[in-house]
Amino acid sequence: MTSDAVNLTQKLSTFSEHWSPKIISRFNDCDVMVVKAHGAFNWHKHDETDDFFLVLSGTLRIELRDRDVVLGPGELFVVPKGVEHRPVADEEVHLLLIEPIGEPNTGDAATAVSKTKI
Amino acid sequence: MTSDAVNLTQKLSTFSEHWSPKIISRFNDCDVMVVKAHGAFNWHKHDETDDFFLVLSGTLRIELRDRDVVLGPGELFVVPKGVEHRPVADEEVHLLLIEPIGEPNTGDAATAVSKTKI
Repeated sequence: MTSDAVNLTQKLSTFSEHWSPKIISRFNDCDVMVVKAHGAFNWHKHDETDDFFLVLSGTLRIELRDRDVVLGPGELFVVPKGVEHRPVADEEVHLLLIEPIGEPNTGDAATAVSKTKI
Repeated sequence: MTSDAVNLTQKLSTFSEHWSPKIISRFNDCDVMVVKAHGAFNWHKHDETDDFFLVLSGTLRIELRDRDVVLGPGELFVVPKGVEHRPVADEEVHLLLIEPIGEPNTGDAATAVSKTKI
């Protein structure tokens, strides 16, 4: 574990795969992660936690059942716990995510992508 | 409460005072805040929570008892719970902060600045 500044751009430069969250820090019982995304993720919800999204570059559309929330760089949205959502990136987008440690990114351990520490 | 995108630059444009955190969203039991800082804050610690700092613009020096952590735009640092620190901004800096709801920003309710929702 580094004990000093975490540079988001530098961390993002170390990988290229999509929808594969990388743990860059920890805040209380949460992982702080960066991820690159392109295309549509699955519809899912987190029954026990809110879902924090901050766009670092690109545009993310978070589809909800009743509307879309569109985020550009420097914009954030917190999906409330239990609310179904589908993140979609028509072009590559870079995100900062915060989720409780061990929370499956799909809301379901059976389909979750493992989170790697970088 | 807005239910859509939260634009950090727009939120920061609505106030000018320093060291006065503004609540812009909520994530589980935490406030998500922006703050403008200039000069030196007090030495303090949070016994029950880590302290999340992400620099949006400018430079922040987080003085620890054994070293300084210097953060530029797009850099974050999480001060572990119980660790004494003093944030210092030689020029104005804009920050994204995350702290549990009700946590005093000085670590001490007697000296804390109240957090306003914007």
